[in-house]
Amino acid sequence: MASISATPQSLAFPSDAGTDFHAWSAERLAQVEALLERWVPPEAPAGLGAAMRYAVLDGGKRLRPLLALATAEAVAGVVPALGDAAWRAACAVELIHAYSLVHDDLPCMDNDVLRRGKPTVHVRFGEAQALLAGDALQALAFELLLPADGGGMAPALAARLCRQLVCASGWQGMAGGQAIDLAGVGQLLDQARLEDMHRRKTGALLLVSVEMGAMAAGADEPALAALRDYGRALGLAFQVVDDILDVTADSATLGKTAGKDAAADKPTFVSLLGLAAAQAYADALLARAHEALDVAQLADARHLHAIADWVVRRNH
Amino acid sequence: MASISATPQSLAFPSDAGTDFHAWSAERLAQVEALLERWVPPEAPAGLGAAMRYAVLDGGKRLRPLLALATAEAVAGVVPALGDAAWRAACAVELIHAYSLVHDDLPCMDNDVLRRGKPTVHVRFGEAQALLAGDALQALAFELLLPADGGGMAPALAARLCRQLVCASGWQGMAGGQAIDLAGVGQLLDQARLEDMHRRKTGALLLVSVEMGAMAAGADEPALAALRDYGRALGLAFQVVDDILDVTADSATLGKTAGKDAAADKPTFVSLLGLAAAQAYADALLARAHEALDVAQLADARHLHAIADWVVRRNH
Repeated sequence: MASISATPQSLAFPSDAGTDFHAWSAERLAQVEALLERWVPPEAPAGLGAAMRYAVLDGGKRLRPLLALATAEAVAGVVPALGDAAWRAACAVELIHAYSLVHDDLPCMDNDVLRRGKPTVHVRFGEAQALLAGDALQALAFELLLPADGGGMAPALAARLCRQLVCASGWQGMAGGQAIDLAGVGQLLDQARLEDMHRRKTGALLLVSVEMGAMAAGADEPALAALRDYGRALGLAFQVVDDILDVTADSATLGKTAGKDAAADKPTFVSLLGLAAAQAYADALLARAHEALDVAQLADARHLHAIADWVVRRNH
Repeated sequence: MASISATPQSLAFPSDAGTDFHAWSAERLAQVEALLERWVPPEAPAGLGAAMRYAVLDGGKRLRPLLALATAEAVAGVVPALGDAAWRAACAVELIHAYSLVHDDLPCMDNDVLRRGKPTVHVRFGEAQALLAGDALQALAFELLLPADGGGMAPALAARLCRQLVCASGWQGMAGGQAIDLAGVGQLLDQARLEDMHRRKTGALLLVSVEMGAMAAGADEPALAALRDYGRALGLAFQVVDDILDVTADSATLGKTAGKDAAADKPTFVSLLGLAAAQAYADALLARAHEALDVAQLADARHLHAIADWVVRRNH
């Protein structure tokens, strides 16, 4: 467990997020890291485990796990018991995210060499092992939701969480969005098509983080509906801000290659709307996220408000 | 539905399998093809659906679906209702198999251009789309087991089938075996290590086909244990025969590139044991599979016996 840092670089939340949120997120991040450390198997054979762990551990903002946990706590009013459904959902969605990054970085996709401040998985382990590690991480995500002993989850909850995650990951969600992205290089998508692409490509996993956290905590349907509005606004805001950072931040701050969308001639919110209008759009989406939380009438939505603020105000 | 052939080329079972088995398998294959045609979504965006369907439809021996269905029928004594758990399991395992072939054929893995008698997916659609199609097919496999309306399955059965399939697909199973294979190129594995590799790489999916068929049909534990012995023997026999065919058959008969293992300096049962001893080993495994079926005391195991015969006597 030596690789778990109590205060990883990814914890650089803006100070106006409040001390309370900072302390909460630092604790949750350390717990998520410890669970991933336990659940991503070093014993996977022939170097596969090393590649999987390299792809997942010691890096990343862990935005999706934090969203899942903040939602579960907001709904239930208490911290989930370590290892239960909310934690499994939090780690499962992070594994899907990690697999998608590994495959996205491959030479036949974005051909990227830097990720989370480190050489990408294929640079470190070779393309074939990176391909397999991504494949195995996708499977592991569902394995986490289906522990041999049931993990204290009713089978109906486990099946529901799996279904949400698989739909968010596959052709209707992330993989479908990546295909649109692939086809869209050099094309001028209009705003509706660009939003449809991002709703699938990055939005679906952010939304499902909120959905799974809510389901794990037993949210009722009205709260779930409002939380979905929050998740959708947050997901879109995340991408708009990503596009802004791609042109305003440098690679060292981002921990990945800056300016690559513009270099690849990819359509972005900045290329479509201009920088000022993109920023205004991100602010409007942030307001929409806050409003959805007010509608949801949760026990304590402070951390979900803070995450939305962070998504729009982050510098990496 | 025009693409469903009533008698695809893959139905070339040896005549000594008996007319009964031939008729049964022809009917099941047509039904599996119709379900895959329905379930692999043409509406997946930006060409992703076309690539997914190209990877899955109109090809393949469909050994795994036949195994799942034959097992379900052997246990329950009746044909499963079309669309129920056994059919979903049969198609789900075929999707995992199809995704693994797409990724395995990529230039960074086996770099193969011919599969099921057609250009491989990346040759036809490009590497990036092939990567995404494989990823989306893996997700779709689990989606099939988790239909929105439950598909008439109890959540506990759906969760159990998902768990079996995810463990067979991931680091403990297929992906782990592929990593060993990758590391083993040019190395002399001993027989125990070669068998461990194949138990994971191809055996796990064949075994899980049997397991899922048995579970979908409500097999009791003693029958399930005996069927697992059958599945393990069959899985190993399948690989031994694959290695034999790799050196004795031509590409046209195989529908894929012949002699590629030898060319890649990969360890095989033939390189390890020699051709005659490998054939004797396959025959011994066939006998073990038949014996396991006798132990299982099923309602009607004829088709499972016939599939084992086919696996060892096939010429492609």
